[in-house]
Amino acid sequence: MHYNKITPHILDQLIAIVGADNILTAKAEIENYSHDETEDLVYYPEVVARPQTVLQVAQLMKLCNDNLIPVTPRGAGTGLAGGALAVHGGLMISMERFNNILDIDEQNLQATVEPGVITELFINAVAEKGLLYPVDPASKGSCFIGGNVANCSGGPRVVKYGTIREYVLNMEVVLPNGDIIWTGANTLKYASGYNLTQLLIGSEGTLGIVTKIVTKLIPKPTLDALMLASFTTNEDACAAVSAIFRAGIVPSALEFMERRGMEWVIEHDGIAFDLKDGIGAFLLIEADGTNQDVIFADCEKINEVLEQYNCQDVLFADTSAQKEELWRIRRTMAVSVKSNSVYKEEDTVVPRAALPQLIKGIKEIGAKYGFESVCYGHAGDGNLHVNIVKAGMSDADWNSKLQDGITEVFELTVALGGTLSGEHGIGLVQKNYMPLKYTPVHFAIWKGIKAIFDPNGILNPGKIF
Amino acid sequence: MHYNKITPHILDQLIAIVGADNILTAKAEIENYSHDETEDLVYYPEVVARPQTVLQVAQLMKLCNDNLIPVTPRGAGTGLAGGALAVHGGLMISMERFNNILDIDEQNLQATVEPGVITELFINAVAEKGLLYPVDPASKGSCFIGGNVANCSGGPRVVKYGTIREYVLNMEVVLPNGDIIWTGANTLKYASGYNLTQLLIGSEGTLGIVTKIVTKLIPKPTLDALMLASFTTNEDACAAVSAIFRAGIVPSALEFMERRGMEWVIEHDGIAFDLKDGIGAFLLIEADGTNQDVIFADCEKINEVLEQYNCQDVLFADTSAQKEELWRIRRTMAVSVKSNSVYKEEDTVVPRAALPQLIKGIKEIGAKYGFESVCYGHAGDGNLHVNIVKAGMSDADWNSKLQDGITEVFELTVALGGTLSGEHGIGLVQKNYMPLKYTPVHFAIWKGIKAIFDPNGILNPGKIF
Repeated sequence: MHYNKITPHILDQLIAIVGADNILTAKAEIENYSHDETEDLVYYPEVVARPQTVLQVAQLMKLCNDNLIPVTPRGAGTGLAGGALAVHGGLMISMERFNNILDIDEQNLQATVEPGVITELFINAVAEKGLLYPVDPASKGSCFIGGNVANCSGGPRVVKYGTIREYVLNMEVVLPNGDIIWTGANTLKYASGYNLTQLLIGSEGTLGIVTKIVTKLIPKPTLDALMLASFTTNEDACAAVSAIFRAGIVPSALEFMERRGMEWVIEHDGIAFDLKDGIGAFLLIEADGTNQDVIFADCEKINEVLEQYNCQDVLFADTSAQKEELWRIRRTMAVSVKSNSVYKEEDTVVPRAALPQLIKGIKEIGAKYGFESVCYGHAGDGNLHVNIVKAGMSDADWNSKLQDGITEVFELTVALGGTLSGEHGIGLVQKNYMPLKYTPVHFAIWKGIKAIFDPNGILNPGKIF
Repeated sequence: MHYNKITPHILDQLIAIVGADNILTAKAEIENYSHDETEDLVYYPEVVARPQTVLQVAQLMKLCNDNLIPVTPRGAGTGLAGGALAVHGGLMISMERFNNILDIDEQNLQATVEPGVITELFINAVAEKGLLYPVDPASKGSCFIGGNVANCSGGPRVVKYGTIREYVLNMEVVLPNGDIIWTGANTLKYASGYNLTQLLIGSEGTLGIVTKIVTKLIPKPTLDALMLASFTTNEDACAAVSAIFRAGIVPSALEFMERRGMEWVIEHDGIAFDLKDGIGAFLLIEADGTNQDVIFADCEKINEVLEQYNCQDVLFADTSAQKEELWRIRRTMAVSVKSNSVYKEEDTVVPRAALPQLIKGIKEIGAKYGFESVCYGHAGDGNLHVNIVKAGMSDADWNSKLQDGITEVFELTVALGGTLSGEHGIGLVQKNYMPLKYTPVHFAIWKGIKAIFDPNGILNPGKIF
């Protein structure tokens, strides 16, 4: 694709659309928009626009499309695959001013929300009305709901409540040529033509820019219990995961954490936690519902399963403060690990019973290539975040051998029936690994779909494929 | 599109692929394949092929694609929108011999199944292992799981357990040119490129022919309770629906039935049911789980809600025989209604709180055009099946005015935030109404997607748009 630069004449038109206050060009102002949470990548857009209305987004898109200027849509910049990086420069459209919860419809248990709303604010707003929106990525305190839609983001509660695909019913979307459509209907069921809502979810901002999201909500469970189980080995912890479901229990969260991650959380966050010798891994397990007896019974059953997998100890959180503390350990793990070392994060996902093989294989591959890894993630979904840490690896090896090691990790993931990303997306940094799983036929279909929505290839170019 | 007829030379090639025993050409043999359950439409394919392997399907598709012969994929022929009708003649590919459950993976709570498996057989097979596959359309005793995928079919339990989209993880698909792909991965989460699994679900056999389906399974609830609540008016019954969810309950089924439907079931099936004077409508409500106390508590709460909506009477099913009888009433309603009159069935879906307005409006439109209607369906999802019955309408009026009446029904549905089909698909008979909801932009995208998969337009032509 050939792209043009933003000329002074086009800059004037951008200003005319959103106002000078909402056009950023100075390097210092743009710095925040030049990176996301993906390792140390930096790409500066030429200009950042901060529209506030769908018509402004449509005008910006049309202008860029007509002038072959690349457009990078931007949420909160918390992505982990480089999806929001302006790799071709051009215009970045930041959705930060689309930050209104437009409607919480308690009659229909639906909400209409703008994409720039911080996920946790939305979760809290519906919780006040006794309702649950269960999509809560670890970054929920800072990420935008629009970014969650773009990347098919998950979080711990997917395991019981389903993915974001189950909760997004309809979206208003601006297409690259400036057309505005609603993707579907505000209904729980939909069998009326190819499902564009589902196609847009997880398309990483390459097909259109979402400007409104209609979500499904459900009644909020009133009670929960949280336990932290410790194991000697990663494999035992991982093997217990699928056994819990086989015992007939669907926990509302089932998270895995390696010892090394726990150590770094304790160190980085100063959390008081008695990390015993000989413990190699943890499962953080939540059961929720509306009846204390049922939750206790579930916990007992879970306990019985854990014992069969050499569980060393189970810590029950007695108070909501203790629960919050345990969740904080899990949620801050990514940040803690990253603050300790140069790293590279992968988002492997496999059928859940394959987790023990996956983590064993990852360690073997690490030994072969000389890298360490810290693994944690949504084990109940078979979704393991693999943080490859540089630690003692030489710069030369890190730069030359790492890619081969990652390739082997993904080859293993694929061989186990899995794929490259469960909830982070492919973005910029995983796209070169896509041929490990997908064939030229897949690429031809994907590129064909892209060309229908975006014949000039202006929208978030360089991502996914 | 220009299509060719099947010549004797091509017929020889078809026979070479699947064997003479699996090529049908005689009218008497093909009669069964000339219609589905959609009103009285009849279209004969030129030839029916019954392949048994994915390679045979691929060879058939390639042959037809190379020779511009239209192909109609066929499940059990239970569709309600004409999606499996060979409107352009050509080759029908019946998937009836793809009838194996290949694997029930109790470690991962997944199954791999061929598309020609009867849905109920699959449900029963996993139930024997304590597992639930909750997608059970009324036709579950005869429909194929492949047809369910093609039409995004639902059933009563979607309201608690989610649509078929939540349960199909991955599919093997033959494309029109004969290419074979897996659409995704066998994982519960997926953020790795445009989601082709989700794009294929609900595409009504226009993009590819599914040859294997990997499903998610969940632990089967061990207990349930079923109640039948009666109301004086449709509006009261429908208004109670959204109130149940607002009270914090998610029933495992919440079905609406009009009195007239009940009358016809009693008459047609000879069911002994004391239908009291003054009763206009029913809700059939199921609560399931693993704890009797919780289920009773849910039922009590539901009862309290029902009382606020002028519920006249609540009948609890005490035995499994009684439960089966109540479910039989609901499941046979479609057949009973259809055996009583010439009819036309619509599959309206709206946000659930809009149900009272929808049903009131349907009756008003009926009064205006002189048709009667019998409504029933998955009220918890806002999904109302509208059976327009000819009854006393003259042939002339039926043929001339009905389409305007249906148009008004859909206009109302769309005005209420809904769409044309919740779980039956658009197929042949609803496609002319699609512009009531969708814009030329939608059609351009859909047709673009179709052309990527099927540039020659050979696969299930004449459907959806």
